[in-house]
Amino acid sequence: MLIVMRTDATREQVDAVCALVRELGGDPRPQLDPQPAVAVGGLQIPLPVERIGRLDGVAECIDDATAPRLVGRGRRPQRTVVRVKGESIGAGGLAIIAGPCAVESREQVLRTAEAVAACGVKWFRGGAFKPRTSPYAFQGLGEEGLRLLEEVSSRFNLRIVTEAKDVASLGAVGQVADVIQIGSRNMYNYSLLEAAGRLNRPVLLKRGMSATVHEWFSSAEYLLAAGNGDVILCERGIRTFETVTRNTLDLAGAILARERTHLPVVADPSHAVGVAAAVPAAALAAAAAGLDGVMIEVHPDPRAALSDGPQAVEPETFVRLVERLRRVHAAASGH
Amino acid sequence: MLIVMRTDATREQVDAVCALVRELGGDPRPQLDPQPAVAVGGLQIPLPVERIGRLDGVAECIDDATAPRLVGRGRRPQRTVVRVKGESIGAGGLAIIAGPCAVESREQVLRTAEAVAACGVKWFRGGAFKPRTSPYAFQGLGEEGLRLLEEVSSRFNLRIVTEAKDVASLGAVGQVADVIQIGSRNMYNYSLLEAAGRLNRPVLLKRGMSATVHEWFSSAEYLLAAGNGDVILCERGIRTFETVTRNTLDLAGAILARERTHLPVVADPSHAVGVAAAVPAAALAAAAAGLDGVMIEVHPDPRAALSDGPQAVEPETFVRLVERLRRVHAAASGH
Amino acid sequence: MLIVMRTDATREQVDAVCALVRELGGDPRPQLDPQPAVAVGGLQIPLPVERIGRLDGVAECIDDATAPRLVGRGRRPQRTVVRVKGESIGAGGLAIIAGPCAVESREQVLRTAEAVAACGVKWFRGGAFKPRTSPYAFQGLGEEGLRLLEEVSSRFNLRIVTEAKDVASLGAVGQVADVIQIGSRNMYNYSLLEAAGRLNRPVLLKRGMSATVHEWFSSAEYLLAAGNGDVILCERGIRTFETVTRNTLDLAGAILARERTHLPVVADPSHAVGVAAAVPAAALAAAAAGLDGVMIEVHPDPRAALSDGPQAVEPETFVRLVERLRRVHAAASGH
Amino acid sequence: MLIVMRTDATREQVDAVCALVRELGGDPRPQLDPQPAVAVGGLQIPLPVERIGRLDGVAECIDDATAPRLVGRGRRPQRTVVRVKGESIGAGGLAIIAGPCAVESREQVLRTAEAVAACGVKWFRGGAFKPRTSPYAFQGLGEEGLRLLEEVSSRFNLRIVTEAKDVASLGAVGQVADVIQIGSRNMYNYSLLEAAGRLNRPVLLKRGMSATVHEWFSSAEYLLAAGNGDVILCERGIRTFETVTRNTLDLAGAILARERTHLPVVADPSHAVGVAAAVPAAALAAAAAGLDGVMIEVHPDPRAALSDGPQAVEPETFVRLVERLRRVHAAASGH
Repeated sequence: MLIVMRTDATREQVDAVCALVRELGGDPRPQLDPQPAVAVGGLQIPLPVERIGRLDGVAECIDDATAPRLVGRGRRPQRTVVRVKGESIGAGGLAIIAGPCAVESREQVLRTAEAVAACGVKWFRGGAFKPRTSPYAFQGLGEEGLRLLEEVSSRFNLRIVTEAKDVASLGAVGQVADVIQIGSRNMYNYSLLEAAGRLNRPVLLKRGMSATVHEWFSSAEYLLAAGNGDVILCERGIRTFETVTRNTLDLAGAILARERTHLPVVADPSHAVGVAAAVPAAALAAAAAGLDGVMIEVHPDPRAALSDGPQAVEPETFVRLVERLRRVHAAASGH
Repeated sequence: MLIVMRTDATREQVDAVCALVRELGGDPRPQLDPQPAVAVGGLQIPLPVERIGRLDGVAECIDDATAPRLVGRGRRPQRTVVRVKGESIGAGGLAIIAGPCAVESREQVLRTAEAVAACGVKWFRGGAFKPRTSPYAFQGLGEEGLRLLEEVSSRFNLRIVTEAKDVASLGAVGQVADVIQIGSRNMYNYSLLEAAGRLNRPVLLKRGMSATVHEWFSSAEYLLAAGNGDVILCERGIRTFETVTRNTLDLAGAILARERTHLPVVADPSHAVGVAAAVPAAALAAAAAGLDGVMIEVHPDPRAALSDGPQAVEPETFVRLVERLRRVHAAASGH
Repeated sequence: MLIVMRTDATREQVDAVCALVRELGGDPRPQLDPQPAVAVGGLQIPLPVERIGRLDGVAECIDDATAPRLVGRGRRPQRTVVRVKGESIGAGGLAIIAGPCAVESREQVLRTAEAVAACGVKWFRGGAFKPRTSPYAFQGLGEEGLRLLEEVSSRFNLRIVTEAKDVASLGAVGQVADVIQIGSRNMYNYSLLEAAGRLNRPVLLKRGMSATVHEWFSSAEYLLAAGNGDVILCERGIRTFETVTRNTLDLAGAILARERTHLPVVADPSHAVGVAAAVPAAALAAAAAGLDGVMIEVHPDPRAALSDGPQAVEPETFVRLVERLRRVHAAASGH
Repeated sequence: MLIVMRTDATREQVDAVCALVRELGGDPRPQLDPQPAVAVGGLQIPLPVERIGRLDGVAECIDDATAPRLVGRGRRPQRTVVRVKGESIGAGGLAIIAGPCAVESREQVLRTAEAVAACGVKWFRGGAFKPRTSPYAFQGLGEEGLRLLEEVSSRFNLRIVTEAKDVASLGAVGQVADVIQIGSRNMYNYSLLEAAGRLNRPVLLKRGMSATVHEWFSSAEYLLAAGNGDVILCERGIRTFETVTRNTLDLAGAILARERTHLPVVADPSHAVGVAAAVPAAALAAAAAGLDGVMIEVHPDPRAALSDGPQAVEPETFVRLVERLRRVHAAASGH
């Protein structure tokens, strides 16, 4: 349940709501920004909406999935901007996040980071913990991968985006990541979302491979309701009948996500398309569509990659792409 | 079956192949450009591949759907350019095709055409024959609609793109249309494709709403095999589980269609997205992705439209969009 | 538009409605059964609903796709039964329709028909005109195939179900077919549906490969609105992301089609599943689900089939399947 | 990686493989049944396949997702039978698993259990921990719900199937559940699968809502590779474009899952179809298709249900359904 308070509600009124919720067996999480509200998570019994609604300062009680939400633009006219070490996502620029699918070795990750940083790119991606379909596939370097990402961060002044694949690895990932990625397979993992929502770190939330746009919003809502408002939505392709691409990049879904929420939205054309030859054109499309960023897989030697080689572009291609992305972003946004 | 001849095959050798095919009960359609070949359509019995292969000048016999095709870039390195009255699609520019979903009245169509032409747009779309899901819905003005399109064509020097919904209306449509549109619902209508393939008019072939990219190529192949090489592919959104948009615009599929065939490829973001607020951003994305054109629904009063109102943009929005499209196209193509 | 008359409307009142519709430029098709109504097809301009509504005997004017329809159970409590030469589909039994995908040769078709008839099966399927994805693939024997089907019909007392792939072949097919099949690719071919609706022959309407259940109903509505009430719906698998089967058999969609319309519904597990080993189990499922029939591809030598060999069962498998189908149908229907 | 040993490999040879794997930084999990093998989970670096392959007793090293697997029938001709307190799933009978979507109150759960047990049903389902799309929706009674399930188990001699929604609740659920359910949203939650794989409790693994059949097998493989062979696969409907049903029941996928693995396969028509009126027919279809069981949502008052009311059948409907299920199962299996 979400108990929305009037904008002029006092601290005491919020506290009174929390006290009643606790008395009724709920776990209240008060929020004062962007608007006073009390989210009640992990609800095990329906709360008496009418009784709560009679308390002073309460505007409305929302208890179903189709109602307006914390992520919606209705409740917050200004857009969310995620800021990390002097750089931002969502403030009007085009954030380019680049790096390999997985951190594989010191040499691979440093070579890639050097090429990425040389283009003036500020954000580096790379997975240390990789959820894989097969139990027998390479699952990432784990803690050792995190150490390599720390080295990348300090040597090249790059902000790190890396995935937490479960609650167990979340703490370690949160120490190193500037932005914690929640992957597609975990978009419905509400326990992980609640845990990440209690951290003080921005989260990049990938859309589930068959999640509707509204379900994606609901998963973001878990993060906001738990107290973390620094959320970036990432479209990475949905599953359809088409097999010529790995997934189907749903740019229109991403456009509407930006239209209907106040959160920054980026696209990952590499995972969406899965065919390196089509990644640059798809990335340019995302930039022209007004999204806040793109995430590009770059690998110094795609054929030797331990995962997702066919969709990674080589550093030389990436250099040219960055230039074109900036040109297209400027043309589309009218600068 | 497609009988591919050697590039140095003589006219006599092609004729000999045709004679044998006829003798075997087939209907040969010889082609000299881009490469000598004999397509055998409407095949009712398997032809003896070996016997044909022994004739002079024959390079190979292709008799299944997975083999290389006339539409593929392998057989034709240069790209197809469709030219109509001094304008072209596929020559490097961005063709903007605009107009209402359906021709509804003289006033509606002239007002829209005037607004479109005032932006310097050269291509006009509008349906006179409309295939509709319900037998009780508005099916288009028919012949009267074609007369209005003729008026638009001559008054505003606009090239007309309009749909032929069946073999019966193909002749009348072909008299007025500069480009005959084959709609999504007819992409698998092979009898209509064969008839359109025998006309001397460019064809804009919309992708079926659940057609794979390869099936789309196969439908284009029907047109080329029947003798019509002036084919434009049009991506208009595919059917997926997502309902926040009308269809899912598959830009990556369109990018690959341009990569793997020599045909021009355009996108129809209006039908794909179905939500007017998201159409401009989706159109800009298509322009940045390197496609050869975009098709935009414009209506002077979308709320009064007899079909597809929610996805039509108003003329004022369209004017600004055209400017941005040109800017983004220039930035993306490096001009 | 569909103009529904009151149940006590007189012939004169229906005639008056038709006269007004004609005067307004429409093409009225009066119907007295199951309820007096006037369908107006091929509508080119919106008719004035209010003016028509004021005529005597008019109950309501329906002019959009979401309204109740002729196919719905609301308008017709009793179920439609299709009867051909002493056999019926929709009267409570389980109709088994069997035969090869395509008629390939006299020997193939007679051998299969003999095996089918020996099991007591009364309905034979086999395509003479085959719509194929590739223009170079085998397209059926055409007229010669129809002659072979006539021979099957008279020698084995089998009722023939065969496809009309376009308006051009409809006449010839209608001479031989006891039930005209409209294939998946043609479910949206409204011109073909209107032509078939004017014939006096039962139609088996396959669901389009990505048609919603409601669109399937709308296509059936075209047949009924044109005057042909002898319609059988056939579920043949829908297109989804899954590739282990050829299509995804949507039995629940078929169950609801039977629940919400008065038309008989059959399933074609062969095309749906596309893997012979799974066809018998899927056919038994359809029988237990209460459908009115199943359509099974049988081929004397599946590996030599010119189309769809991998999904055809051999005659020996078919014999055992027929027995199990009858047992399961009896158990499920409580006989 | 999966290191498959020769069938005559000795214990010492298996131990030697484990020692080498450990030395190389891997975490070996030896298995002697059904065939000697060493699974290496959580792999962070590729192991040297050739070096391992030279050890005595090693038959082959499998390190990608497309290779044969522990779940496949190739490695294990006999079918897996899951046995709990004298009842079994997978031994040829039809297991009926029934109960409410969520445990809501003592009265609700006891009334339902009484009705279910009265039909001779031996398996009870009901969720205490419910993953929900919205953070504001009812999330289940948690521990209190588990207590009520214990009471159901002892009072009515019912075996309990209930969901573990995360690693944190797995221990508590495992104390009460006779079969631990892993829900659709968690099919890709590999950390949860690995944890469940290390427990000594049967697991019912629901197919992800957009998981391919092969991905479903891979998730089951995580359980087997971790040491838990008591796995039941549950088809619960996949996500498609169709909206008339909640999901699309993929019975053919379930049939092939039973054909290609040695695991028992059951269907959950309630979640798949989502429309109570169609649940009985869909359940009968699953029984006729040869599946090992069906899972049916029963609620004493569906309109008052806190989750998924529209798909729950009432006890009176359920009683009649159980009888028909038994009749159809007998007819289909030839008893």
